[in-house]
This record gives sequence, C-alpha cells and structure tokens, in this order.
Amino acid sequence: MLGNFTYCNPTKLHFGENSLEMLKDELSHYGKNILLTYGGGSIKKTGLYDEIVKILKDCKKNITELPGVMPNPTVEKLYEGAKLARESEADLILAVGGGSVCDYSKAVSVSAYCNEDPWEKYYLKMEDVDNKIIPVGCVLTMVGTGSEMNGGAVITNHKAKLKIGHVFGENVYPKFAILNPKLTYTLPKYQMVAGFFDIMNHITEQYFSGTDDSTSDYLMEGLMKSLIHSSEIAVNDPENYEARSNIMWIATWALNTFVAMGKSTDWMVHMIGQSVGAYTDATHGMTLAAVALPYYRYILPYGTEKFKRFAINVWNVNPEGKNDEQIALEGLSAMESWMKKLGLVMNITDLGATPDMIDGIADGTFLLDGGYKQLTRDEVVEILKQCL
Amino acid sequence: MLGNFTYCNPTKLHFGENSLEMLKDELSHYGKNILLTYGGGSIKKTGLYDEIVKILKDCKKNITELPGVMPNPTVEKLYEGAKLARESEADLILAVGGGSVCDYSKAVSVSAYCNEDPWEKYYLKMEDVDNKIIPVGCVLTMVGTGSEMNGGAVITNHKAKLKIGHVFGENVYPKFAILNPKLTYTLPKYQMVAGFFDIMNHITEQYFSGTDDSTSDYLMEGLMKSLIHSSEIAVNDPENYEARSNIMWIATWALNTFVAMGKSTDWMVHMIGQSVGAYTDATHGMTLAAVALPYYRYILPYGTEKFKRFAINVWNVNPEGKNDEQIALEGLSAMESWMKKLGLVMNITDLGATPDMIDGIADGTFLLDGGYKQLTRDEVVEILKQCL
Repeated sequence: MLGNFTYCNPTKLHFGENSLEMLKDELSHYGKNILLTYGGGSIKKTGLYDEIVKILKDCKKNITELPGVMPNPTVEKLYEGAKLARESEADLILAVGGGSVCDYSKAVSVSAYCNEDPWEKYYLKMEDVDNKIIPVGCVLTMVGTGSEMNGGAVITNHKAKLKIGHVFGENVYPKFAILNPKLTYTLPKYQMVAGFFDIMNHITEQYFSGTDDSTSDYLMEGLMKSLIHSSEIAVNDPENYEARSNIMWIATWALNTFVAMGKSTDWMVHMIGQSVGAYTDATHGMTLAAVALPYYRYILPYGTEKFKRFAINVWNVNPEGKNDEQIALEGLSAMESWMKKLGLVMNITDLGATPDMIDGIADGTFLLDGGYKQLTRDEVVEILKQCL
Repeated sequence: MLGNFTYCNPTKLHFGENSLEMLKDELSHYGKNILLTYGGGSIKKTGLYDEIVKILKDCKKNITELPGVMPNPTVEKLYEGAKLARESEADLILAVGGGSVCDYSKAVSVSAYCNEDPWEKYYLKMEDVDNKIIPVGCVLTMVGTGSEMNGGAVITNHKAKLKIGHVFGENVYPKFAILNPKLTYTLPKYQMVAGFFDIMNHITEQYFSGTDDSTSDYLMEGLMKSLIHSSEIAVNDPENYEARSNIMWIATWALNTFVAMGKSTDWMVHMIGQSVGAYTDATHGMTLAAVALPYYRYILPYGTEKFKRFAINVWNVNPEGKNDEQIALEGLSAMESWMKKLGLVMNITDLGATPDMIDGIADGTFLLDGGYKQLTRDEVVEILKQCL
C-alpha cells in the first residue's frame, strides 16, 4: 500500500558520455559569478578541471575557486564556503566531484545567506530554510550518494564527534546534474566498491521496512538485481561502459526520494555507520559495509517475511525444503558473498575503530523508528561489538 | 547499457486519499481564470464536480466549463477547446478525468495561441511548440495512460481515420496532478481492466526492444510484477486500496519517460491498436489487448532472448528442460491467462472491426523501427487477420 505523499523532483539530468556538452547550455540560465567547488585535485590530473574552466571562460563567467572539499565535509569548511559564496556574490555553485562535493555545495547554498550559525540551525535544530538559496549544479565524477538529484547534505563536526545529514526540500536540489559514466573510470577501486555498497545500502535501508504490498519494493528489487549484476562486472572491468552506466543510473534513483514514496524506511545502518565515520573518518560506504550484516542479522527475527522475500527475489535463493528463517539467512549469506567478491571492508576494526570507541559511537548513533525493530543504545553497543 | 539522454520531469504529484486537499494550495500559483475540462459527467454523479467547484469558488476563481471530452478526443473538440481557452483567457486548464481529459487539456494548452491549424502543425507535421502554452493541472479519476506526468496528447481525426499522439516537451507536462486512488473506485469494470492492460502494454512496448543489459528493463520487470499482483486483487475487489494505490502509481511511472531512458522502444501494439481505435472508436486499452498477443507471437522469433527473460523474470516460468522458444512462448501464454482472468477483449471482432476494415487499419498504422522486427504493411495485415 502506498501512503499519502507529495512527489516532485525537478533536477534535470544530462546522462551519457557526451553530457558535458550540455554544461554551456545550463550556464546560460545563471549570472556571471560561479563558485567552483571540488575536492583534492584529482580533477586536475584527469583534465576535467581544464575542460570545465574552458567552458566557464567561453561563457564569460567569473570563477571563484573553492577546492579542498574533503570526503566528509566539515563544519569549518562549511563556514569557509558560506563566507566565500556570499563575498563572491555567487550566482551558481558548480560542484565537480562525488557526493561529498555535491552535499557540501548544497550546504553552502543554504548557509551563505543564513543569519544564524548554519550548523546549529540546519543540523542541530533541523530547521527549514528561510533565506536566499544559491542554485547548485553538479558534474559528477563518482557515484553512490544520489546527491546529484536530492536535497541531502551530510556535514561532519569532528569536535562534537557528530556526522549529521539534513535532507532539504526540492528548492535546494541541484538544478542540473551532468552524469558521464566515463568520468567514474579513474576512481580507485577502494572508493569505487565503497560507492557500490553505499548504493546497495541506500536501497536496503528503504526496502527493510513495512509489511504491506508496495510497488516501491518491487522497484527496489529491480534496482538491486541490476546493481548486483553490473557491480560484479565493473569490479573486474572498471571501464565496462554498460556496467558503469547502469550503476550510475541506479545510484541516482536509489536515493532521489522515488523508491521511498508512500512507504516507511529504516536508515539504521546509515545511523550507525555515520557514527563510525565520525570516529574514524573512514570512507562512508565502507562504514556501511562494516556494520550492515551484524545489524541485519540482529533485526532479522523482527522482519523475517521481508528478509525471506529479499532472499528469493533479489538473490534467487531456492526456498524448497527450508523454513522462513533459513531462507532469510541464506539471503544475507548471499549478500555477504557478493560483498566479499567486491572486496569491501567487513568490520570496523579494519577502519580504525577500537573497542574503547564503542560507547562513544553508540552515543553518537541516532535511534530511528522506521525499521523492523527500534534499537536501544545497548542494542547498538551489542551490534557494534559484532562489527569489530 | 544506457545511451545518451536528458531526463527532467517537473510535474508535482499529490498522492493519497486526502490529496484533493492540495488543490487549493496549487491554485494559488495561477491567475483567476480556470478552464474546467471533464468528460461525460460521471464526476457530477460521484460528487467530485461539486467538491472541485466549491474549492475553485473558495479560491475566488472564474470558472469556464468545457465538458463533454470524449474517450478519444476529436480534432473538432480540440478546435472548440482552443477557441474557448483563448476567449476565456484561461490562466490554468484544470483537467478532471482520465487520460483522455488530460491528453485533451494538453492539446488545448498548446493550441489556444497557435497561429496555424493545430492538427496540421502538431499532428500531421509533428512540429514543436513555439507559442504561448497555458499551464495544465489534473485531478485523475481513472488510471492507465500516465498522461498526468508526461507530454503525450493523442487526438483522433475521424474524417481522416487517424488517431495520432504527439509527445510534447516538459514545458507542456501538467504542472501538478492529484492522484487519489479512491476516485478510481467508481469506474466500471470494463474501463478499469482496459486501463490495467494499457499500463501493462506501456511497459511491454518499452521492454521489448534492445538486446543489451539495461537497468530500465529491471525496473520494468518490477513494475510488471507489481501490476500483475495488484490487478488480480483489484479485479475481484475494486475497492482494495492497497491494490488500487499500487496500480495508480505504476500507471504514472510506466509512461512518464522514466523507464524508457537510455533505451530503444517498440510501440507497435499502440500503432496497430490506435488504428483499430480510429475505425471502431473502441476503448483504447481494449484495442491494445485485442492485438497484443498476435503481434508478440509474430515478432517473438526476432527477440527470443528477451521474451525468454520476460517469461522467467515476470511470469516465473520454470525454464528447466525447455528450449528458449518454448520458454518464451510459455511467458506469452501466462500473459494470455492473466488477460483472460481480467476479462479483457481478446480480438478486434468483439470491438466491432470487420475483415473489410483490415486494409484501412493497416494503412493507418504507423510503422516504427524500434522493436525486434520492423514490420511491413503486409505483415500488419497478416497480424490483423490473426486478431479477428
């Protein structure tokens, strides 16, 4: 059953190996001042930086550079960007990078003209935006977060040991996103497979909730099957365009609000993983991989029906002669095999977490109630011990 | 593999049993003059007309009524609507009904300020819109066409025996659509199941094309499985909210451009069915049901791999001990059983077509080249004979 909701996603996507050609056209809709955000400079090595600067100059734009956006964008970096966006009177923030750069650019877009401390307003108090928003456009170089077509913006506060995501409304969504699967080829394998698991987990976070019959669950099964198939190809052949283009598209639709419409969602793997990330600064997708299986095995008894469906419909587990729990567990084992085949990090120890951090990680874990079992803090501690 | 494309769908959807409450909010974005389009008056019997007029009056709108939109909107009706929209200086066309009323309203929206004959410009010459467009909003009372979230607008010219669809750009898409599954309860069973098959066929038209691995195909398999499941419930229990809400959502996503992104598509069942419709004025979904199986059985040898995949992934055909063709045919037989269970019309004779019409229907069939076999006119004649 689909509950009541409003769906609207106005982001325009230009997809394909020639999609950068559309940037010029998009730029014509905005003023002269462009704030160009990017990460550690890999776009300079690949030549993408030069291509984009040339297009901006051809369009007679003023460029203000904001490099050095880190994988888990910090609150200090947010303050720096907000100030620069305001001072440069940015008409458009052009994000070139992956989910972190997109997330960061959206956070800057709502913070530049915010009269309060944006960390406090948007992250601690989770308030709505009531000030001027600078439009954001994206050129995506890695996939996973879906940030190119949603309102999400995760910011990390290392001092407070908090990593929090605010999901802003559609007025904060990127106005356009350029998705060229070939731009993802150069990503190191570690980041590539972390992104693949991030996608998978976005889907399972929304899938493992609800007990009714919902079209959204069928759509997610389709996305997962396609992701499993393409990721197994891409991990051995990263320049396989067919696989990488499918994965890029799956990533966008896994987290642009579509598959969550009309249904409840879980998100506890993200809550625990993000808290691990705040302590270890590990790659986002790897923190999810390291905590997912202990979490799912823990909640399985509370949602056996759905885990059974997952096993049969997504992993082709043959149900004959097995009870529901056996089938459900076999599905998780199949997911585990797939994760190992991709080369994911399977525990938090390998990410730098130590037993003495567990209490702090549990304290930093937001306890949501959309899944099959509302966890207590003590249960998070138990699960985290399984993740070591 | 996903080819190059641009995706953008700005329509805002308000979904659920209370979604009509959102109409007031939507109306605040438009001027005073509302052109209210609807069909044969069933909305007066159900009370929906009174509800909507009350909301419009509460919002102090001027209402110009344009009733009598027929199931296959005619070119004469289009001229009438274009004139009325212009003369009433409509700020918004509010379509209350099913796909025909939505399609018609979009055709009126681009025709009101068209300096040429809109039938000639948009349907015979398939030209783009270069004049003022009146925004359209929809309150949907039956599902099937996806017209509430796309740019399609089919118009029938009885004199010329032509039924042609123009797919307009996103500036013609409805600005908003109100989707209340309960409004679909009162539809007679014949129209209800015709709509179900229309949805199924929208998906198969896009599925039966291409030989590569595309995420879009996995998504369509999910939509079809959910549709089959929910339609079998709804046909016996039309007021089952779970089933009707899923079907309403599937209908929208089956034809809002999403599942076609990056892949080729077929659409020959629609081409043949629409020509049957031009001769018989039969319900759209029934014309598709009457021609689909003979068409698919004819093209099966040219796309056996995909028909086999359809059989296994959508209809759970057990492939063991069978060759590809047997598996593929078994899938179509499973679809046939489902169609009969719904009570669909399985031949064009029952729709009023006679053998002497076949040449004319074949002449009126546009021959597209996106499917597994480009048909000749003679092959259309052969297929139509199988449909008698």
